[in-house]
Amino acid sequence: MKKSIGAHTFVYPHPVFLVGSYDVDGKANVMTASWSGICCSDPPCVAVSLRKATYSYSCIMHSRAFTINIPSVEQMKKTDYAGIYSGKGQDKFPAAGYTAIPSQRVAAPCVDECSVVLECKLVHTLELGLHTQFVGEILDVQADESVLGENGLPDMLKVNPLLFSMSDRSYYSVGGWLAKAFSVGR
Amino acid sequence: MKKSIGAHTFVYPHPVFLVGSYDVDGKANVMTASWSGICCSDPPCVAVSLRKATYSYSCIMHSRAFTINIPSVEQMKKTDYAGIYSGKGQDKFPAAGYTAIPSQRVAAPCVDECSVVLECKLVHTLELGLHTQFVGEILDVQADESVLGENGLPDMLKVNPLLFSMSDRSYYSVGGWLAKAFSVGR
Repeated sequence: MKKSIGAHTFVYPHPVFLVGSYDVDGKANVMTASWSGICCSDPPCVAVSLRKATYSYSCIMHSRAFTINIPSVEQMKKTDYAGIYSGKGQDKFPAAGYTAIPSQRVAAPCVDECSVVLECKLVHTLELGLHTQFVGEILDVQADESVLGENGLPDMLKVNPLLFSMSDRSYYSVGGWLAKAFSVGR
Repeated sequence: MKKSIGAHTFVYPHPVFLVGSYDVDGKANVMTASWSGICCSDPPCVAVSLRKATYSYSCIMHSRAFTINIPSVEQMKKTDYAGIYSGKGQDKFPAAGYTAIPSQRVAAPCVDECSVVLECKLVHTLELGLHTQFVGEILDVQADESVLGENGLPDMLKVNPLLFSMSDRSYYSVGGWLAKAFSVGR
């Protein structure tokens, strides 16, 4: 039996990403974001929504680029820190315990400790209300060799990403491999 | 040591959602989608991207509404079916083994078997290339009482949603609860 629980932003799961950007002075900034997902295959694009009040909003509007970095379960505390505190009054990369390294493709910092990093050029902004959606074209993906699987691409269980649930404001881990998609339902 | 693996749509994880819509004749259609995520808190909005070639694309363009339904691990085969085959030549709800029930708020069908359903009114379309992004304002969330937690809201482990990884085209499950967000990093 279903019941109405109101107009909430509840989906299962939300991802947990770190968004890297440079401010107007070239200082690297990093922020945790979960209002995000892939939005196009060709050109490959990822969308992430930020509030105008965030420091990252002004950084991305200025630099027209960002990175999406995938933190692991081991990096949960650092990642939560980057979601609580603003980069406005502090150098947030070292404050969170992360290291900024330059992207090879775009004017945005990568999180060195994250095993998978998407380098994105801003191609659209969409004003939606409290949040502005930034759509970035993915120019390259950088991955640590330690998380690559047999096919030479990142392995979900080695990446070991964080998941987020809004309805209890909690982090979760990934469980096990289940089955091949585009196959098990034939 | 990081290496460049090219411009791919790899994030960890992708969600697995079922998109419900009505065609021009009022036939209920359902399709699996992973290029999706929350994109605004106020008004609450969710984005989902579909290729123009899909039947759901024409349905949503016509009806200006859709539902986002969260399938569980137990529904993996049905969900994979709904991602492989088109609704163009078949009645896909029964073909997949799902049941369509009308939304109370919008002109779109809900998947009765899914424990959490978001009822969405189309508010934006954004042409990105191969995919068109549909932004829906979430007018209500319907949830099965069986998946509600102590706070009266859906519990991630009871919802037991599917995860998807593009780099090995596989489904995964959610593991365990880790910690409270906006708290563990203080």
